[in-house]
Amino acid sequence: MAGKRGEGATAPANNPTSEAKTPRTERGRRTLRAILDAAAAEFGEKGFHDGSISHITQRAGVALGSFYTYFDSKEEVFRALVRDMSAQVRDHVAPHVQAAPDGIAAERVGLESFLEFVRDHKEIYRIIDESEFVDQESYRAHYENSVERIRARLETGARRGEVRADVGEIHAWAVMGMNVFLGLRYGVWGKDKTPDEVAAVANELLRKGLAPD
Amino acid sequence: MAGKRGEGATAPANNPTSEAKTPRTERGRRTLRAILDAAAAEFGEKGFHDGSISHITQRAGVALGSFYTYFDSKEEVFRALVRDMSAQVRDHVAPHVQAAPDGIAAERVGLESFLEFVRDHKEIYRIIDESEFVDQESYRAHYENSVERIRARLETGARRGEVRADVGEIHAWAVMGMNVFLGLRYGVWGKDKTPDEVAAVANELLRKGLAPD
Repeated sequence: MAGKRGEGATAPANNPTSEAKTPRTERGRRTLRAILDAAAAEFGEKGFHDGSISHITQRAGVALGSFYTYFDSKEEVFRALVRDMSAQVRDHVAPHVQAAPDGIAAERVGLESFLEFVRDHKEIYRIIDESEFVDQESYRAHYENSVERIRARLETGARRGEVRADVGEIHAWAVMGMNVFLGLRYGVWGKDKTPDEVAAVANELLRKGLAPD
Repeated sequence: MAGKRGEGATAPANNPTSEAKTPRTERGRRTLRAILDAAAAEFGEKGFHDGSISHITQRAGVALGSFYTYFDSKEEVFRALVRDMSAQVRDHVAPHVQAAPDGIAAERVGLESFLEFVRDHKEIYRIIDESEFVDQESYRAHYENSVERIRARLETGARRGEVRADVGEIHAWAVMGMNVFLGLRYGVWGKDKTPDEVAAVANELLRKGLAPD
């Protein structure tokens, strides 16, 4: 696997629609935002096959023509939505992670803020998971980009002596897998533990498990 | 969440079809096995919506009437298939885990044998993942049952003093998430690392991370 794939890892934070036409005006940006939020609600509720462009434009309160200004098809808005949700997670987590005092603490606040994001955006699991069937490339890009960010953070921690020197790709996939299923269990399926409790337990596992020799 | 759900956790190991009629003869058992293997191939290749009962019976080399002896619908054979794959993973991993010298080594051979299983049954990810959309209860049962097994193993290790005494549900979800994504990355998407290499790295994380105080 060649590391970063697709646009997610390197695209500007607020350009989730690099394949679609990019709006040039503030009004255009608001319209595109409304379409993507409506698409999240529509596909999150009904799934890809039962979701429709006309319902997306109704939810967004925009004309059908506005939709086609930005997207050519239902597949295209779905792909853009996956990239958008992926970017939303990244942008929600990033400031917390950047403010953390060390490389392991960064993973703790990263997981905690991810769990909070998931509780407010439960549709994210259904949408990302369905992308495996609608657009395999977006699905892989979402996870590969997430892993690259975790790996970069862990390697930064390793250079600072906070994380074992040989930390790498396998560790990053392990950490991401933990986060995805802790998010599903404690963010989407049940709220019987707080994000702080869950992140504390998972982070102690990493702090000891990835400690420098 | 109430712990064990559905039949998977408590059903006998070779009864993946408790909802369907259970065959009483050896010939019936072979027919049912052929139908389930054909369903795995059909749904793994085409997905649930494009898969069909007639193609399943053709692949299995059985008459349509034989299908309806065991299942009433495409949904029902799909549900039985998810339980069957879940049970196959469990039965493949169990003897390795039981032979392990301690509670953490059990997780290592558990992951290694899971990675080997996945390489031989790549369709498992597509089928389990699609169950989220076809039959949410089977999807949850698969993961909740996996977590219960991991949790029971870790708690056994804790009683023996091999694992931290307060090991619990959050750790079990973390371990399962690691395993699921390591399986996706190194079992389905790429084989650039051996199951042994991947399991060794992940297990060192657990051995240190879950060590008794």
